[in-house]
Amino acid sequence: MKKRISILGSTGSIGSNTLKVLENLENDLKVVYLSAFSNSRKLIEQAEKFKPKAICLVEEEAYKETRNHFKNDKTEVILGREGLLELSSRDDVDIMLNGLVGGIGMEPTLSAIKSGVDVALSNKESLVMAGSIINEAMKKSGAKLFPVDSEHSAIWQCIAGENIEDIDKIILTGSGGPFLDRDLGTFDEITLKEALNHPNWEMGEKITIDSATMMNKGLEVIEAFWLFNGNQTPIEIVIHPQSIIHSMVEFQDGSVKAQMGVPDMKVPIQYALTYPRHRKANWERLDFFKIKELNFYKPNLDKFPCISLAYDALKKLGTGPAALNLANDYSVQRFLRQEIQFMDIYRINYMVLNTHNWLNEPSLGDLRELDNWVENCVNSYN
Amino acid sequence: MKKRISILGSTGSIGSNTLKVLENLENDLKVVYLSAFSNSRKLIEQAEKFKPKAICLVEEEAYKETRNHFKNDKTEVILGREGLLELSSRDDVDIMLNGLVGGIGMEPTLSAIKSGVDVALSNKESLVMAGSIINEAMKKSGAKLFPVDSEHSAIWQCIAGENIEDIDKIILTGSGGPFLDRDLGTFDEITLKEALNHPNWEMGEKITIDSATMMNKGLEVIEAFWLFNGNQTPIEIVIHPQSIIHSMVEFQDGSVKAQMGVPDMKVPIQYALTYPRHRKANWERLDFFKIKELNFYKPNLDKFPCISLAYDALKKLGTGPAALNLANDYSVQRFLRQEIQFMDIYRINYMVLNTHNWLNEPSLGDLRELDNWVENCVNSYN
Repeated sequence: MKKRISILGSTGSIGSNTLKVLENLENDLKVVYLSAFSNSRKLIEQAEKFKPKAICLVEEEAYKETRNHFKNDKTEVILGREGLLELSSRDDVDIMLNGLVGGIGMEPTLSAIKSGVDVALSNKESLVMAGSIINEAMKKSGAKLFPVDSEHSAIWQCIAGENIEDIDKIILTGSGGPFLDRDLGTFDEITLKEALNHPNWEMGEKITIDSATMMNKGLEVIEAFWLFNGNQTPIEIVIHPQSIIHSMVEFQDGSVKAQMGVPDMKVPIQYALTYPRHRKANWERLDFFKIKELNFYKPNLDKFPCISLAYDALKKLGTGPAALNLANDYSVQRFLRQEIQFMDIYRINYMVLNTHNWLNEPSLGDLRELDNWVENCVNSYN
Repeated sequence: MKKRISILGSTGSIGSNTLKVLENLENDLKVVYLSAFSNSRKLIEQAEKFKPKAICLVEEEAYKETRNHFKNDKTEVILGREGLLELSSRDDVDIMLNGLVGGIGMEPTLSAIKSGVDVALSNKESLVMAGSIINEAMKKSGAKLFPVDSEHSAIWQCIAGENIEDIDKIILTGSGGPFLDRDLGTFDEITLKEALNHPNWEMGEKITIDSATMMNKGLEVIEAFWLFNGNQTPIEIVIHPQSIIHSMVEFQDGSVKAQMGVPDMKVPIQYALTYPRHRKANWERLDFFKIKELNFYKPNLDKFPCISLAYDALKKLGTGPAALNLANDYSVQRFLRQEIQFMDIYRINYMVLNTHNWLNEPSLGDLRELDNWVENCVNSYN
């Protein structure tokens, strides 16, 4: 029997790659649900190709257009944020791929987990926002999280067949983004266009900015903490500009395991869907004779202070990581609208992390309230 | 209960490192037997420290000296090649570490396997000489082989928790040895001293010469074939001068797993003894900020034609690999005695591989006969 999958954010970068993976796995998986924010044209195209049972659009105009398109068809068309949450709680799928962007991805993850549906998680903000709540829900329902981020997929692959107690250190690699070699003195002049120009990975806009500030690497540290940190393992960041080694694990005998590959999100997406197997795929392969050299550096925390914020948030725990993540969601939106400067993202994130009303064990309601407070706070920053 | 271990070749490089590992694992393992060729002084020292039940010396003068030393002690002292074979067939140990050098290590491996004793195998020549015979014996007795070579340990670690059918390629890394950058035109002038000067690894003389000719990498390809090639997996050699990545495995989705570490044989030796666990050890760790760069090159088969001989021998199979290995054992001995030139090692190996009386399914007796023929043949080369 085919594994049934729903894809949240199917018109985005991760969603589109997931559908390419499904073409490779057409004998193993069947698309049941697709969702998008507002890209009705692309969603209609995907729905006509993959014939899901239902599709969801968050934005109303796009919804109307799509519903109209499918008016003589049995494809169910669902509206809005409420519809998305309802869709993500349906238990007639085996796995939900969450390719949503930002903190809004968190509640759908939790809904699926609560319904006993495994989640292939690209939305790292889910765990950053609500790692403790999600882990509790996983214990109750038995549903599992399968990381899709290339770094976390790498760690996951490196610990296959290993005992978690033998891990001494998790080493997250990061390309360093477009500003690795840029002089700190010019960081306040960084333009949106420069920040959107990632050297190795083609990704959505939000995560591309997060790579430029390296907030992304910080959020990944927090994500790794929730995914792999049964044993209080230190998590270290190593700059590796070629993005060939996707991350590493050091064991207590000094042995280090690394997972490598060309920078192609299809590989970790497919692994999350076929775990524990590596299924045949004819995508581009790593050619060591073309690579020639791999380099490693310490991250520069003066240039990328958002990394330190993530470690601070992990020390605080409670609402710390959620506040940081929300601040970053809203500040990046403002940077994308060209309302603030590049380094303002850090300034805002720092301010929110250190001035929000910290709670030790926030409920979902507390997180929603925090969300409202942070949105106001970030949008009033001048 | 402690795991009982016998160590063949305990005074050599691998044997000495194994005893260092046992100091780290003193609560888990107990030394039962030790053997050496002729280094009585060192073997006596080891026996006094680790209190084995019996020790063996192959060389008669060394045996007499040692027996005399222990005349008032209950430590059994065993003589000669016959004694070594008898010792290696004893089944009152859980694991035998075979640190012998050259083709003479093969029969002890087979004896242990036949007695149902697992073998931690540093003596790659065992599998090169008699891979088929040893695999048959393993099926019968249920005993297992645990690789100790850093490359094969790396592959073994990379496939932990993986499905052998998912492997697309085994990538053996090699430092390239001391002559990686030397001009081919000067290869006939290579001195013994130059060949014994390995850039990364401190090892015994025989394997150091094998690294210089890269015959070692070729023999490792054959060893990997017998250890991991259930699926007819291609085995590729990649030159990696830093010896940090010890080897890699590429899966059929394009994902590559690598095992890395400082060049320290204690790590793979310990892993072979503690598999599937990585036990705590305070040996030097990999420091990525000191490494700075890793490089990869294609092997130069004009400079290192012994590599091609190994692939030729694998195509022939039957007595091919054994003939090549024996030729190499004897030709390296002659090079170490400064009786032949560096490139004569290749010339002799080529001649023996291509002129010996090839048999498809050699018995142990056939291999002994082959050994005599090759010894004569190599020693008469002028």
